[in-house]
Amino acid sequence: MNEELFSSVEKIKHCITEYNEGMALGVHPYEIADLLVEIAELDKSVYQGLLEILPHILLAEVLVELPKPLQEEFYAEHGAKELAQLTQELDTDDAADLIQHIEVVDETKAGAILNNLPSEDRDTIEELISYNSNEAGAYMQVELFDAHIDETIGDSIKRLKHMKAHNEVSNIHHVFVVSDKKKFLGMIPLEDLILHGPKEYYKDIIEAEGKITVSVNDSDEIKSVVETVSNYDLSVIPVVNKKGTLLGRITSDDIYDIIEEEATDQLYHLAGVNDKAEQEESLWKVGKSRGIWLGLNLVTAIVASLVIGLFDSTIQSLVALAVLMPIVASMGGNAGTQTLTVTVRQMALGDIDLDEAKETIYKEVVVSLMNGMIYAIVMGLIAYWWFALPMLGVVIGAAMVINLLSAGFFGAVIPLGLKRFGIDPAIGSTVLLTTVTDVVGFFSFLGLATMILL
Amino acid sequence: MNEELFSSVEKIKHCITEYNEGMALGVHPYEIADLLVEIAELDKSVYQGLLEILPHILLAEVLVELPKPLQEEFYAEHGAKELAQLTQELDTDDAADLIQHIEVVDETKAGAILNNLPSEDRDTIEELISYNSNEAGAYMQVELFDAHIDETIGDSIKRLKHMKAHNEVSNIHHVFVVSDKKKFLGMIPLEDLILHGPKEYYKDIIEAEGKITVSVNDSDEIKSVVETVSNYDLSVIPVVNKKGTLLGRITSDDIYDIIEEEATDQLYHLAGVNDKAEQEESLWKVGKSRGIWLGLNLVTAIVASLVIGLFDSTIQSLVALAVLMPIVASMGGNAGTQTLTVTVRQMALGDIDLDEAKETIYKEVVVSLMNGMIYAIVMGLIAYWWFALPMLGVVIGAAMVINLLSAGFFGAVIPLGLKRFGIDPAIGSTVLLTTVTDVVGFFSFLGLATMILL
Repeated sequence: MNEELFSSVEKIKHCITEYNEGMALGVHPYEIADLLVEIAELDKSVYQGLLEILPHILLAEVLVELPKPLQEEFYAEHGAKELAQLTQELDTDDAADLIQHIEVVDETKAGAILNNLPSEDRDTIEELISYNSNEAGAYMQVELFDAHIDETIGDSIKRLKHMKAHNEVSNIHHVFVVSDKKKFLGMIPLEDLILHGPKEYYKDIIEAEGKITVSVNDSDEIKSVVETVSNYDLSVIPVVNKKGTLLGRITSDDIYDIIEEEATDQLYHLAGVNDKAEQEESLWKVGKSRGIWLGLNLVTAIVASLVIGLFDSTIQSLVALAVLMPIVASMGGNAGTQTLTVTVRQMALGDIDLDEAKETIYKEVVVSLMNGMIYAIVMGLIAYWWFALPMLGVVIGAAMVINLLSAGFFGAVIPLGLKRFGIDPAIGSTVLLTTVTDVVGFFSFLGLATMILL
Repeated sequence: MNEELFSSVEKIKHCITEYNEGMALGVHPYEIADLLVEIAELDKSVYQGLLEILPHILLAEVLVELPKPLQEEFYAEHGAKELAQLTQELDTDDAADLIQHIEVVDETKAGAILNNLPSEDRDTIEELISYNSNEAGAYMQVELFDAHIDETIGDSIKRLKHMKAHNEVSNIHHVFVVSDKKKFLGMIPLEDLILHGPKEYYKDIIEAEGKITVSVNDSDEIKSVVETVSNYDLSVIPVVNKKGTLLGRITSDDIYDIIEEEATDQLYHLAGVNDKAEQEESLWKVGKSRGIWLGLNLVTAIVASLVIGLFDSTIQSLVALAVLMPIVASMGGNAGTQTLTVTVRQMALGDIDLDEAKETIYKEVVVSLMNGMIYAIVMGLIAYWWFALPMLGVVIGAAMVINLLSAGFFGAVIPLGLKRFGIDPAIGSTVLLTTVTDVVGFFSFLGLATMILL
């Protein structure tokens, strides 16, 4: 066994010892998963041996932190009964993720695991799985610490002690106060609880200090949940149903992941890439998903070529036009991409609303026009000097002003319009915009050349 | 007063009443700021009247939630003494932000505010301001709840009660255990405290349950802090100096903002936009910042045109080449952007390391080549059919394979290379890539045409 391997194994063994002695706070599943990935690369049998000696609860938590291929390997090698036991050790949100992950690879096994769960757990997980992936409910965990408004702090703490002893909850931070039928009333940070005596009622605390009443609906879009959590600077948000019944909570660690995922999606959509397809192992599938966008781009490129084809005799009589025309299209494409990117991102962050569409379009047109005029002069002079044709400079300058003006306008209008029709403004907007800037660029440049130069 | 205005004002008055009665938990500064923005649009004098009647502490918290223009208006209208008083009510991270904000608009006033602060507060804020904006220290707040390892829980809770009563701390969630000289030992969630008796020592809890030892250095890059917090699923992370002394903490609400900002930066850099410049009020400044990138793009577009110029006689004898050549460049540009975007994002998320450069390049080349071959055939047939020239189909097909191959290669190599040299892989990579795909696209297409068709 080499030194690196030995030291990683020792670290994991140390974690296991600490964990078995009850010192669970210092043992981080992520750290163990990280070490295991290293070990798996060096010696697969040592890796598998370590998985066997991990305490059950810890194994479950480590498992969901492993990279997907290693997870899938584990799921393939273990039976539904054992996987069901591991599932039970997880928080419900992680358990639902695990089942959904297995469902993609092996639907029968996922079903078998569900059947091996106690009926209550099964119902919970089936409910969580049934949410759409853009709904708040899909991200919540049902484990939380709640208390009835007519309960005393002391009684609720007793329950909390019991739950903690049975490892049923972690990362509490807040108590969710409910009335009859689990109707959500508000949450109170644990620190405020500490300041009150065990005989005080929750009612009294609320009367004295108020309560945090922010909550989201289980069918709310997850985007708006992230906005609420971030605006209100919360570390946890309660999820309720339409009747106001408390269903679960979404914690900060999920919010981090969702923000990252949303940003990745946006970035990828603008470039014609799909996040899910990119995670496929098979290069064929990755290529296929990207190929669809390239195909769409080919269509728009051909449309632009058809426009050029309209002016083939003009080009024949002045080849300089063929040399210069990509510059007009390229500058329009770039200015448009700047506008498009800013508009899409500002909408996603909630900084631009459809109400402000006019202001946004105005701003973008002004900025684009400004740069259009500056570079029209620059490029006009260059073209004049290059081909010793003063009017060619005028033509390319005018075409650039026209194209950058339309780039600014459409760069803002396309995403705003898509959003208006309920379509994700990041999807497809780049292809639409490029079509506009190519067509307008080639048409205005070659059209003006035909009129003025010939 | 119209109905909308009346109802917003009533809501704020209700918040003030609740706040004055001590029910601060239910009063959210963000909500009040949101209402105030609405009111400011409807009636500026009502808005200003409401600011006057907001309790001091609440005013400070609401102020930092207002949009920047409204904040700046307030800073301009109030004296350094009053602003210093407000600053004192804020958590240190928000106070430092406020001072830095004022510094940008009016440096003298920022200095005057600092001079009006008690020397201890001034020292803290000056220290926080002195960090670089990409350092962990710039995001921390020094308000936290710590306890000495030889202290009893009861004693520490007494201190916490005192601090809470004086509104010195909020969002506690964890106690940070320190040894002599404030050396950080580990943190314990408040919920674990609740389970122990007031006479127990922190030493005992740590011996029984362990402690969370994750921490970051004040000079650590904020990017890596976000990664740690997200990997370890934390809602707060302690910040220590090189000696291990506890300096402060970074909470989840800051992490949300940082993740959003990093993603915006990436998205913007890829499109040649600068986030800071975009926030300027003056359209001239926004345009200037974007114009610099457009200027760079103009240079690369001219380089591509020079390549076309090499083949002007070829184009003259076959204008179809001018019609088709943008297709080759466009497909290369798009395939390259797909690769570039995925590589940049995966590096930012820590999913690709420089160690895996070879695998990444291999994958991207294979995927690009695959699509290159498919669309080479498609486009070859289209060109053959369009211009009734079989060899023109062969030329454009071959040029597309060459250009998509190089797009895949350079789309991966450019960001990996920039990172290798310590440059942010998102900055400038798009311009570099476009230069490559334009030059290779035009050169291969027109070069092959010259060799084969003439």
